[in-house]
Amino acid sequence: MIVGELINSSRKAIRPAIKDYDANAIIALAKKQEMAGADYLDINCGSFTLDEPDRLVWLTNVIKEATKLPLCLDSPNVNALTAALPLINDRPILVNSITAEKSRFESILPLVQQYRTGIIALCMSDKGIAKTTEDRIRIVDKLVNDLVKSDVPVEKIYLDPMVQPVATTFNAAKPIFETVRYVKKEYPGIHCICGLSNVSFGLPNRQLINRYFLSQIIAFGMDSFILNPTDQLLMGAYYVSKTLTGEDKFCVEYLKKYRNGLYADSFNYS
Amino acid sequence: MIVGELINSSRKAIRPAIKDYDANAIIALAKKQEMAGADYLDINCGSFTLDEPDRLVWLTNVIKEATKLPLCLDSPNVNALTAALPLINDRPILVNSITAEKSRFESILPLVQQYRTGIIALCMSDKGIAKTTEDRIRIVDKLVNDLVKSDVPVEKIYLDPMVQPVATTFNAAKPIFETVRYVKKEYPGIHCICGLSNVSFGLPNRQLINRYFLSQIIAFGMDSFILNPTDQLLMGAYYVSKTLTGEDKFCVEYLKKYRNGLYADSFNYS
Repeated sequence: MIVGELINSSRKAIRPAIKDYDANAIIALAKKQEMAGADYLDINCGSFTLDEPDRLVWLTNVIKEATKLPLCLDSPNVNALTAALPLINDRPILVNSITAEKSRFESILPLVQQYRTGIIALCMSDKGIAKTTEDRIRIVDKLVNDLVKSDVPVEKIYLDPMVQPVATTFNAAKPIFETVRYVKKEYPGIHCICGLSNVSFGLPNRQLINRYFLSQIIAFGMDSFILNPTDQLLMGAYYVSKTLTGEDKFCVEYLKKYRNGLYADSFNYS
Repeated sequence: MIVGELINSSRKAIRPAIKDYDANAIIALAKKQEMAGADYLDINCGSFTLDEPDRLVWLTNVIKEATKLPLCLDSPNVNALTAALPLINDRPILVNSITAEKSRFESILPLVQQYRTGIIALCMSDKGIAKTTEDRIRIVDKLVNDLVKSDVPVEKIYLDPMVQPVATTFNAAKPIFETVRYVKKEYPGIHCICGLSNVSFGLPNRQLINRYFLSQIIAFGMDSFILNPTDQLLMGAYYVSKTLTGEDKFCVEYLKKYRNGLYADSFNYS
């Protein structure tokens, strides 16, 4: 599953459109991501710290008219979520995100319950971001247990193991691989989700690194991604990787995308 | 570890050079692969069925003068191996390959013992190529046991799980992932090796598929590859993937290759 990440006020190219209430720019960006293959659209205006709730309401209203895609409300701000959630009643919603931090868990959970949303659960506790595989697994166990106990259905839980940069964290990818493998084995039905760009932070040619990382974590069972769906090379990596891991029976999807001109960076085998 | 695969008489571009004893063409191809980063050079003239031993002797003599790289004698033909092995006494040798087939194992093993070569061991028995993960693991256990019992040091064993095409074998990659993971866990010190191109057989844009497959199996522990080292995109995939899996501390190798212009298919992250 692909969550289109482009409508985010921390992106320089988008911020002015949100700042100036430029609905047409937002609509175009929503449609562009839908055309490119997004299954959900992320909506984030967290950098507008003073009036995030109003901005999120405006964005939600604009985007829900522009597309029928499910929406991912991306905010830790309870007021913003409380204002925007009642506006969406005709499609699935994902809330991005909850953590194992006590106060954040307790403030976000009632909204997830009331609006029966999907929930992205980050491997983060009151001790901070998980570092080792063991840290992550401990937080995963706690999050899953607490969410299921609170009547959140497993298929609505999206665990995010929190990818760290390989440039600054030694062996950053391994705990992600192992955590995803653990979740898929121990909790069938629960999803794993992540963003990609953090892995390449601080290095040149980030998108190349992101593509190979995507491919690797798909092989370990990651099934959902928050990414830029208009990046054709990245979407190529996504479809090729799914074909390799057996999710694309008879390579039907691969061949269809090929005929539509995806996989632009390849050349013929000789 | 990279085994350069280009000197192979089944490749149309190379066959004439072997047929006509064109030493200069072979020397050029050896040096080109060395420059491109090969650690070993594969030598295969198996398509010359009538005089493979003579051809292999000629190739070995030409190539050992052209480069100091270790050589990988790629033949199941005992006569060819027996003729060529004594010619190499100044560098490591890899024999490609042995299997768990009774007659092949018994005929190749004495050469491995006598010349203390490394040995590529294919997941193949008298019942044919292994199909499931369980088949592969059973053959792996037998091969490792029989080789170690015969005084072949573990660090000289290169297990090849035998990659099958995803287009014709449902879920072809998964047993490869699991077998490599098993080997690395159960038999530390033993290498895993494979060719790549078989995985994409029958599909368009094969090199793109090969690159992502390379990346995925590196994440599971595959450490050696028989491939075309002059394919820059593929070598890019190799270095990026090693950086992601923590084998490239502080990303030193990645940055060095970047400054040297590798990773040509990338563009800047924005």
